[in-house]
Amino acid sequence: MPKINENFIKIPASYLFSEVARRVNEYKKSKPDHRVIRMDIGDIKLPLPDACVEAMIKAANEQRSASTFRGYAPDYGYDFLREAIRNNDFISRGVDIKEDEIFISDGAKSDTGNIGDIFSAENRVAVADPAYPVYVDTSAMGGRAGVPHANGQWSDLVYLPCNFSNDFLPALPGVKVDLIYLCSPNNPTGAAFTHAKLAEWVDYARKSSAVILFDAAYEAFITEADVPHSIFEIDGAREVAIEFRSFSKTAGFTGTRCGYTVVPKEVTARNERGDNVSLNALWGRRQSTKFNGTAYVIQRAAEAVYSAEGKMQVKKLLDFYKENAKAIRDGLQRAGYTVFGGTNAPYIWAQTPNSEKSWDYFDYLLKEKNIVVTPGSGFGSCGEGYVRFAAFGRQEDTDEAIRRLTEG
Amino acid sequence: MPKINENFIKIPASYLFSEVARRVNEYKKSKPDHRVIRMDIGDIKLPLPDACVEAMIKAANEQRSASTFRGYAPDYGYDFLREAIRNNDFISRGVDIKEDEIFISDGAKSDTGNIGDIFSAENRVAVADPAYPVYVDTSAMGGRAGVPHANGQWSDLVYLPCNFSNDFLPALPGVKVDLIYLCSPNNPTGAAFTHAKLAEWVDYARKSSAVILFDAAYEAFITEADVPHSIFEIDGAREVAIEFRSFSKTAGFTGTRCGYTVVPKEVTARNERGDNVSLNALWGRRQSTKFNGTAYVIQRAAEAVYSAEGKMQVKKLLDFYKENAKAIRDGLQRAGYTVFGGTNAPYIWAQTPNSEKSWDYFDYLLKEKNIVVTPGSGFGSCGEGYVRFAAFGRQEDTDEAIRRLTEG
Repeated sequence: MPKINENFIKIPASYLFSEVARRVNEYKKSKPDHRVIRMDIGDIKLPLPDACVEAMIKAANEQRSASTFRGYAPDYGYDFLREAIRNNDFISRGVDIKEDEIFISDGAKSDTGNIGDIFSAENRVAVADPAYPVYVDTSAMGGRAGVPHANGQWSDLVYLPCNFSNDFLPALPGVKVDLIYLCSPNNPTGAAFTHAKLAEWVDYARKSSAVILFDAAYEAFITEADVPHSIFEIDGAREVAIEFRSFSKTAGFTGTRCGYTVVPKEVTARNERGDNVSLNALWGRRQSTKFNGTAYVIQRAAEAVYSAEGKMQVKKLLDFYKENAKAIRDGLQRAGYTVFGGTNAPYIWAQTPNSEKSWDYFDYLLKEKNIVVTPGSGFGSCGEGYVRFAAFGRQEDTDEAIRRLTEG
Repeated sequence: MPKINENFIKIPASYLFSEVARRVNEYKKSKPDHRVIRMDIGDIKLPLPDACVEAMIKAANEQRSASTFRGYAPDYGYDFLREAIRNNDFISRGVDIKEDEIFISDGAKSDTGNIGDIFSAENRVAVADPAYPVYVDTSAMGGRAGVPHANGQWSDLVYLPCNFSNDFLPALPGVKVDLIYLCSPNNPTGAAFTHAKLAEWVDYARKSSAVILFDAAYEAFITEADVPHSIFEIDGAREVAIEFRSFSKTAGFTGTRCGYTVVPKEVTARNERGDNVSLNALWGRRQSTKFNGTAYVIQRAAEAVYSAEGKMQVKKLLDFYKENAKAIRDGLQRAGYTVFGGTNAPYIWAQTPNSEKSWDYFDYLLKEKNIVVTPGSGFGSCGEGYVRFAAFGRQEDTDEAIRRLTEG
């Protein structure tokens, strides 16, 4: 009989967000008349920009006739989209990323998970604590995490604690690591690296020969000038970093599925003989073997994000979410919470009032206030005693939620 | 410095179809005025059925307003599509597959590759020779193939030779194996298992505790009554098989990207303690961790394949390709080729006339006849001396290609 990948049964049976959904559904079933406000999962409420819908419809109509029909897309994405990304997300910020360093995908979750395929199981991985669960779970699936301790931490991962004392920005690892997941602006804490802080990480990675897996899925929410949108704004990052980007929150693509990964030509890892191997080539091989390209209509929708109309519509979306984040942050503070984030990110990270455990406070908010948040402990043991509020809801829901929380 | 997954540099640097594309592009550049007919990669030429386009446009318009907008799809797919699949692809054939055994994805290539994630690297894998390269390449990436020999075969894979003497249907393995990739109707040979033949495999898997990874991407091209469309038509298969399906060729989804994988509740593999573990649960965990669902508009397009209008349009598409396959098969025979396939599959497998090597004959056909085929040796060492013709082109191109080949 085949053997399973033993690592799969070491990880918790349920993915964090699935467990939240389960409890919410159970509660709703028991109290069908209660109006529950979702401030948990990063699922957006505002619709897809018109420019993207129009582009998708135009592309769908092209698929209707043989003369304009498109079959298999290039595995790495269409040039029209890679060029739009290059010009708008990089050249415009003075960063020279080439088209063949950009790999279009169906989203950052897939890529941050699948990137492990190209690395040996022996690498030592560092993750912030708390962190987006995919980094930890996929490291575990790939055999890089060891075994889980009772507190949920894994024996072989190097955890970088984030808390109020370090402004939720991880300190450099105290031991040698090979791969470092960094997410800025951060999910779940909302913290963001300044240029100077991120430069310390790039410098560290260069000196210690580590590779940074940089998740920039929330870069569009940055409001402060000294916060970099891409790690490649930092000198020397091309040799030590891979960057993940997403259209999900930026342009409402949660249900439309498109993202991309930047793997510069210079970034390498070592083979058994000690030679440097291009990660750009390895990721390309992974994608051409296990992926068949992102749908044509979806790539056209993503391209429209960069049209003049699309940019205006996306700005409106983002302005709304940014204001919403500020309203949640301010409202929670007025209600007496100690909070973090919400300035450069759509997430507000709040301490539970009396050091309640995250899941206890989750249950309290669900049952007493009919508000759904994400329990901080689901992001790592340092998240215990916190909950995450997401700013992707409707204005009136935010107001109502703050009212309920202020009432005490 | 991080270590790479060493297995990646053992596999040939270039994916078969990329190498074909490279040679074709080079030739076209040197002879821009020659009309090259593509009969190589399984990329279809006929457009997407109108019903699918209409469904996609309707769904795109729903994404335009907040009241109908859909964010993150369920990781495993929308119920509307899982139900349509259950009823049309299984219940209608007397096969009881439940909705929660169906996992929607962006295509069979992703799933046949990613399925390896849930299995230990220690499993012994059997593949037909020739076979779709993804089975071999992803087994290698996952550490299940060992090292490549000079002839391209891998030390740890069990090859099941297919040739004229066995009607290109593999014999049962002579040694103990854990995982068996089977593809019927077959890419590249066009061979298909009858009920009786496939039942032998299910019986074998049950007796030897193996799991069959059954690729049924071409089931829609079956014309003969005794050829099963699903392995689950065979009694007992639910305990030993996983099935992969695709809308790519069936309904023109090569550039639209949708497929699905069936993992019955009964199929298991063993953990280190010797317990049976449900593969349905493991694949679910894999997908919810490394995948974020297929785009809503794409799932609506796939659902439309099963509408009354969609079925009619898909039938027309398939009838065309089936006739085309027959025309190629008959034409090649008239031109003196020894051929196989083309009856239950869109592929015709032809012997090179004077035992030329596949790539030599590929170059000859490209340069002398301006016809692109796929070299059989790219599918495995037993494919040497063969080339594959695909039936996805236009009628007039088929006629012209046969004319060129018949002229000698």
